[in-house]
Amino acid sequence: MDSNNDWRQRLYVMIFQTDTVAGRRFDRLLLLIILASLVIVILDSIDEVHQNYAKVLAYIEWGFTLIFAIEYGLRLYCSPKPLRYAFSFYGLVDLLAIVPGILALYYSDAQYLLIIRIIRMLRIFRVLKLSPYLKQANYLMSALRGSKQKIVVFLVSVCTLVTVFGTLMYVIEGPEHGFTSIPKGIYWAIVTLTTVGFGDIVPKTPLGQVISSLVMITGYSIIAVPTGIFTAELANAMRGDQLQHDCPVCKKSSHEPNAAFCSRCGNGLYSKVE
Amino acid sequence: MDSNNDWRQRLYVMIFQTDTVAGRRFDRLLLLIILASLVIVILDSIDEVHQNYAKVLAYIEWGFTLIFAIEYGLRLYCSPKPLRYAFSFYGLVDLLAIVPGILALYYSDAQYLLIIRIIRMLRIFRVLKLSPYLKQANYLMSALRGSKQKIVVFLVSVCTLVTVFGTLMYVIEGPEHGFTSIPKGIYWAIVTLTTVGFGDIVPKTPLGQVISSLVMITGYSIIAVPTGIFTAELANAMRGDQLQHDCPVCKKSSHEPNAAFCSRCGNGLYSKVE
Amino acid sequence: MDSNNDWRQRLYVMIFQTDTVAGRRFDRLLLLIILASLVIVILDSIDEVHQNYAKVLAYIEWGFTLIFAIEYGLRLYCSPKPLRYAFSFYGLVDLLAIVPGILALYYSDAQYLLIIRIIRMLRIFRVLKLSPYLKQANYLMSALRGSKQKIVVFLVSVCTLVTVFGTLMYVIEGPEHGFTSIPKGIYWAIVTLTTVGFGDIVPKTPLGQVISSLVMITGYSIIAVPTGIFTAELANAMRGDQLQHDCPVCKKSSHEPNAAFCSRCGNGLYSKVE
Amino acid sequence: MDSNNDWRQRLYVMIFQTDTVAGRRFDRLLLLIILASLVIVILDSIDEVHQNYAKVLAYIEWGFTLIFAIEYGLRLYCSPKPLRYAFSFYGLVDLLAIVPGILALYYSDAQYLLIIRIIRMLRIFRVLKLSPYLKQANYLMSALRGSKQKIVVFLVSVCTLVTVFGTLMYVIEGPEHGFTSIPKGIYWAIVTLTTVGFGDIVPKTPLGQVISSLVMITGYSIIAVPTGIFTAELANAMRGDQLQHDCPVCKKSSHEPNAAFCSRCGNGLYSKVE
Repeated sequence: MDSNNDWRQRLYVMIFQTDTVAGRRFDRLLLLIILASLVIVILDSIDEVHQNYAKVLAYIEWGFTLIFAIEYGLRLYCSPKPLRYAFSFYGLVDLLAIVPGILALYYSDAQYLLIIRIIRMLRIFRVLKLSPYLKQANYLMSALRGSKQKIVVFLVSVCTLVTVFGTLMYVIEGPEHGFTSIPKGIYWAIVTLTTVGFGDIVPKTPLGQVISSLVMITGYSIIAVPTGIFTAELANAMRGDQLQHDCPVCKKSSHEPNAAFCSRCGNGLYSKVE
Repeated sequence: MDSNNDWRQRLYVMIFQTDTVAGRRFDRLLLLIILASLVIVILDSIDEVHQNYAKVLAYIEWGFTLIFAIEYGLRLYCSPKPLRYAFSFYGLVDLLAIVPGILALYYSDAQYLLIIRIIRMLRIFRVLKLSPYLKQANYLMSALRGSKQKIVVFLVSVCTLVTVFGTLMYVIEGPEHGFTSIPKGIYWAIVTLTTVGFGDIVPKTPLGQVISSLVMITGYSIIAVPTGIFTAELANAMRGDQLQHDCPVCKKSSHEPNAAFCSRCGNGLYSKVE
Repeated sequence: MDSNNDWRQRLYVMIFQTDTVAGRRFDRLLLLIILASLVIVILDSIDEVHQNYAKVLAYIEWGFTLIFAIEYGLRLYCSPKPLRYAFSFYGLVDLLAIVPGILALYYSDAQYLLIIRIIRMLRIFRVLKLSPYLKQANYLMSALRGSKQKIVVFLVSVCTLVTVFGTLMYVIEGPEHGFTSIPKGIYWAIVTLTTVGFGDIVPKTPLGQVISSLVMITGYSIIAVPTGIFTAELANAMRGDQLQHDCPVCKKSSHEPNAAFCSRCGNGLYSKVE
Repeated sequence: MDSNNDWRQRLYVMIFQTDTVAGRRFDRLLLLIILASLVIVILDSIDEVHQNYAKVLAYIEWGFTLIFAIEYGLRLYCSPKPLRYAFSFYGLVDLLAIVPGILALYYSDAQYLLIIRIIRMLRIFRVLKLSPYLKQANYLMSALRGSKQKIVVFLVSVCTLVTVFGTLMYVIEGPEHGFTSIPKGIYWAIVTLTTVGFGDIVPKTPLGQVISSLVMITGYSIIAVPTGIFTAELANAMRGDQLQHDCPVCKKSSHEPNAAFCSRCGNGLYSKVE
């Protein structure tokens, strides 16, 4: 057996899998490094910190970029199918975690792209006890998927409402009250409909305040729509653990996961071949 | 066969229906033109754009109005029952999409009425794969219809609350803190109850702040009401309600979803195969 | 038969009941008068209106007070049990609708108490087709009653959270950033937790902003609690049209409203006396 | 029997239990004292009150601290297992209610730690009719426990969103519009996503307002997620889940709520009376 190949194999297990102690330890260490590199980027954006420690932080950032580059190299090296990894979702994210660090040498603003490393944090679900979380995320996902069309209908309605109300307010309030253009009016309508209410632009005319009241009550009420959609779908998805099989006699379509007989008519769900 | 009539027939299929390739292409083109005309109206409202391109944009707007006018003419021409089309919902909307463009020649503010063209965007659901979206919209609609009365009760309660709280705040805070009249107080109460919170009018006196806290907690809690109503109704609409199966003895045709026996005559709905 | 008594009887039917044409007409007229009197109070609070029409409005208000006084007198006169009416809920509200109008002759601020007349608007549900709305209101009420204890638990938790966070912010931010006392801090915590966010008091220190973020995310998440409670209870209340009767054999406790046999075990719900 | 021991026993019953009249009276008195001590702390933080009554309030606070110290001593004295009480949750809270009062003699700011006494208010559920409230709290708790993993997934997603959007806004808007650092951007993103919207920092550039609109609509929509999760779980917890009834043939003990036949062996769960 080729000892080099053997070493590569062991590296692969450690880096790509989480079943072994070494694998889990590696993943945990990696998460800590990612987190640390994010903290550095965030700290560097604070003015007082930047003025005093700009150089130190830059060195540390380069250090992290180096570490991630080495890690990326190792992943390419030990992966049995390097190209497949390189073009997988995780492979691209791993690459994206390095590039801005190199770009930052030339364009200082590029460093903020480093925040993209946050996507790597998705691996956190691999370190936590994996499966139950992913199963729950699956529930949420399948609920979202099931409600996709309803949500499109909802979002199209919201966009229409917001455009109409934004234009109305632009015509009624006019530039002298901060509604300087229709896009500004639409921005205000979004701020108001979503009940955020910054207060940077507010209606001043009585008619404008009446329309605003309408927008607010609309926004306050229709939040029920996405909530209702999602709740109904989630309840569906959670009930979906059931056995989906039409009873041959009474057509009852969902049963207990390990049912042998229909609980409504008592007939066998699967007739034995006799 | 009259070739003129035949051409009219083909035009009708293309303009009014979406089953043919030409029909779908026509609808998609129309949507793009509507969207473009909306974008022009919105752009024209931005001051910098208006000052530099007012004339160009005006020409483009007239062009769109011309296109819509021609389209409207064609629809009237090729429709088998022109009057019925003219007074249908879509016919009126199509007319409304032209009128403001002509009015804008005389009153410059009329151009904002063009935003009414957004209603034409409803055709978008015809271009997207029609039926599943409409079915979902139907679910939403039937949920809304089922909860109409509950929502009236809710809105009447909200209006009452808002009037009472608005008057209270006007009496407590008074004009010197921005509550210059009862309508202003009601406007503030709506802003607060819906949790928008612009912050243009805020309570200053301790008693006013206590009442505000009450309004806010009320608003925060009763948002549960429309949400609960809509969710319960939507879950109802989505559940394939009752079991549709004729009882073999008494012919009762709808039963509880999991019924094994008829609740009127007590006979088994499904005889066991023995 | 005493003609005076007969007339009193007919007056009673007209004023207190809604089954006859005259009764419905009377109720509708009364609603309009109440609404008009509310509008007068609201209009009178607007400064420009008050300065120009103070006298006219005062006369109109006295007129309305007179009308309501006469109506109250008639109700007392024609009611078979005047005292019982006088101390019923509606009787007290009817009295309260008159008193502030008389007080307003001496104390000008008392006129705002007139807004109490809004409670009389509750009669609106008698004018609209009564029963379906009241049934829906009953659903909402029974959902609220069913969730009362859960809501007390929720409100106690919210009060505790708000007190703790308000004190924390007072200690952290201090008077120089607007948190001048613990009650002010609690007011701010309520404004923030309910996601209203006026912006009249905002955290300035980094630590204060971290705590604020915590309060906001808490408020954003726990809104799920009253919503969930109410939705679950409402779904229960809507299902509650069912027959509540334990099946003597299988103990299934709720059945179709007119079930004679249990749909689970097929046994009669009520054994015949033989 | 030792009369001293007997007295201790009676003290124990009165202080620690709520079954006797004396016990309930003691708990009610204690709650009032705790509430009064909280009110004193809160009042003392108001500037006008502090300037005029600082000394009186300080004396009262010492009095309350003394009372709580005596109560703590009595609890230790009469408890059969003093150490176990001292290190129980309630024991530690009772101790924490005294310490800040003593610290306040040396550090004046320590007095605000007194607010920790609010935790003692948890005893309120013992004074109110205990069990139904706790049962309801249990429903809420079990719903929260059931949705824990889903909520972790949700919170991780929210944190990621907020970090990405905060960084984006920092890069786009920059320090000149109030986004002075990435943490500030994240704070703004939380304020906006949770629909609080203080308005202390608002986007000024068109691109910033577009991103803001995205954040707001996201925040407005994903509030559906915790609500849906909690509602679905609560409905689950409240439904008397499965049918508990031993199958007469195979002894399977829990079935679908409406099962008429056992899903494992197909035999009727309830034999018909014939």
